[in-house]
Amino acid sequence: MFHLLDLFGTAVFAVSGALAAGRKHLDLFGVLVLAVVTAIGGGTLRDLTLGLTPVFWIQAPSYLWIASIAGLVTLLLARWRWLHRDFLPIADAIGLATFCVIGAERALAAGVHPTTAVLMGVMTGVFGGMLRDVLCGEVPLVLRKELYATAALAGSLIMVVLSLILPGMAIAAWAGLLTCLGLRLAAIRWQLGLPVFRHRD
Amino acid sequence: MFHLLDLFGTAVFAVSGALAAGRKHLDLFGVLVLAVVTAIGGGTLRDLTLGLTPVFWIQAPSYLWIASIAGLVTLLLARWRWLHRDFLPIADAIGLATFCVIGAERALAAGVHPTTAVLMGVMTGVFGGMLRDVLCGEVPLVLRKELYATAALAGSLIMVVLSLILPGMAIAAWAGLLTCLGLRLAAIRWQLGLPVFRHRD
Amino acid sequence: MFHLLDLFGTAVFAVSGALAAGRKHLDLFGVLVLAVVTAIGGGTLRDLTLGLTPVFWIQAPSYLWIASIAGLVTLLLARWRWLHRDFLPIADAIGLATFCVIGAERALAAGVHPTTAVLMGVMTGVFGGMLRDVLCGEVPLVLRKELYATAALAGSLIMVVLSLILPGMAIAAWAGLLTCLGLRLAAIRWQLGLPVFRHRD
Repeated sequence: MFHLLDLFGTAVFAVSGALAAGRKHLDLFGVLVLAVVTAIGGGTLRDLTLGLTPVFWIQAPSYLWIASIAGLVTLLLARWRWLHRDFLPIADAIGLATFCVIGAERALAAGVHPTTAVLMGVMTGVFGGMLRDVLCGEVPLVLRKELYATAALAGSLIMVVLSLILPGMAIAAWAGLLTCLGLRLAAIRWQLGLPVFRHRD
Repeated sequence: MFHLLDLFGTAVFAVSGALAAGRKHLDLFGVLVLAVVTAIGGGTLRDLTLGLTPVFWIQAPSYLWIASIAGLVTLLLARWRWLHRDFLPIADAIGLATFCVIGAERALAAGVHPTTAVLMGVMTGVFGGMLRDVLCGEVPLVLRKELYATAALAGSLIMVVLSLILPGMAIAAWAGLLTCLGLRLAAIRWQLGLPVFRHRD
Repeated sequence: MFHLLDLFGTAVFAVSGALAAGRKHLDLFGVLVLAVVTAIGGGTLRDLTLGLTPVFWIQAPSYLWIASIAGLVTLLLARWRWLHRDFLPIADAIGLATFCVIGAERALAAGVHPTTAVLMGVMTGVFGGMLRDVLCGEVPLVLRKELYATAALAGSLIMVVLSLILPGMAIAAWAGLLTCLGLRLAAIRWQLGLPVFRHRD
């Protein structure tokens, strides 16, 4: 079940990368790069810093295929506005929730400190989108938007804390996933955000 | 022979990094950084994701010296317009072709899946230039320009496919190199490009 | 002593990241990310390229806590202008000097070539700030500003050369630290800079 959600999240993140490429008028290759980078960026940084090399998409190239195909399919479907206006934000929330739970789980399995595992969950969820925005020459959206990384932080935290208390991973993983998903959907619905820090030298 | 081409490619990529630094009015250190980052960025990401650490320029610091010296020499030669107008694009095509073949070869030697080896070839060829452009605050040129990464993809693909069929690497490597070089030179000569994807929310 | 300076440098770099986030009107999470990325970015790239994984902040999560708390405290103290006008540049110079000496030392301990160790010192000192600026959508300040990376280079070089000549690390480390600190403070005081390279195609 989580593996299916993982593949779904990969595809959804790839679509958001491809749409960003379209906004910047990139060519076909640019679409592919942004789709793949957005989809696998978070997991790649997680594996690199944990020392789990070769990274996951080298061990299982199916992630590359899914991201590439999702990026190309986006070209065909981009005209259907309901798709990226209504469906994408919800799909993206599912992807975020899945990625942060899987990231935290993989870090715990590598035997790291719980603090680090929480961070790895957040990083897996948000770093791909940050790379996407930097490649588009923009300040990453997740640093400015309504609750996004905060939802990932909450989900990752719940997941790690429960996994320390409860036997087995399943309940902890589902609780983390639903926490993140619920917060993110609420943030979209009511435009919840963190306070902004303004500073001038 | 390929080792010589590799050093040549390193120098040429460093020159393109140094020229980009000049366009942005960076100081001497900025020139050095952009020269080195452009020259070794692709190979570094390849080695990191494959888990081949310490990365190649730690095992052979000559790459750092070549890139640094090429960056500094660029300061002296930048006034000669024929150099960067006429010579650089062709030299850059040779560098791209060499890097993508060497990247694919190193990935195959590490025993990865052919799909991954093709990607590693492309990444080795184009990632340095992407870092250069991001550091200059611009959307990477390779995501927008006439056939560039596509040439790397073709060369890398030919190299990997032939290496699976033929005994020995030599023919596969030369075929890949010439494919990439030919496509890139044709793209420069006739301004061939991929279709562009335009999208508005 | 050096460990204390290391923690001090981490906090100072985190403050500079948080202030940059404030200048760009990022939200609370953006402040945290920029604080942490600026503080640990250089050491992370050093450990990744040397193959010293899991990276240092996974082995000692205290770095993450210090950077996060320093980032949040910045929100409270940002109104005190003397803090970031007068104190921060000097504190930042101490952080830079410490990071470049520690980076070079860690590379030497990993048994790399002296050229590489010098580069690792510079990278540890300046890469965090480069990431901070790229995430803010700007050309990194260290590529344009008065002597900054050059001070790191001088300190790192002195440290590595002396460590090859003298027995023990202590004198080499202090000499490197004071060289870097002295150059950086002199550069701030008299606005010393490297010549700028201007180039147009």
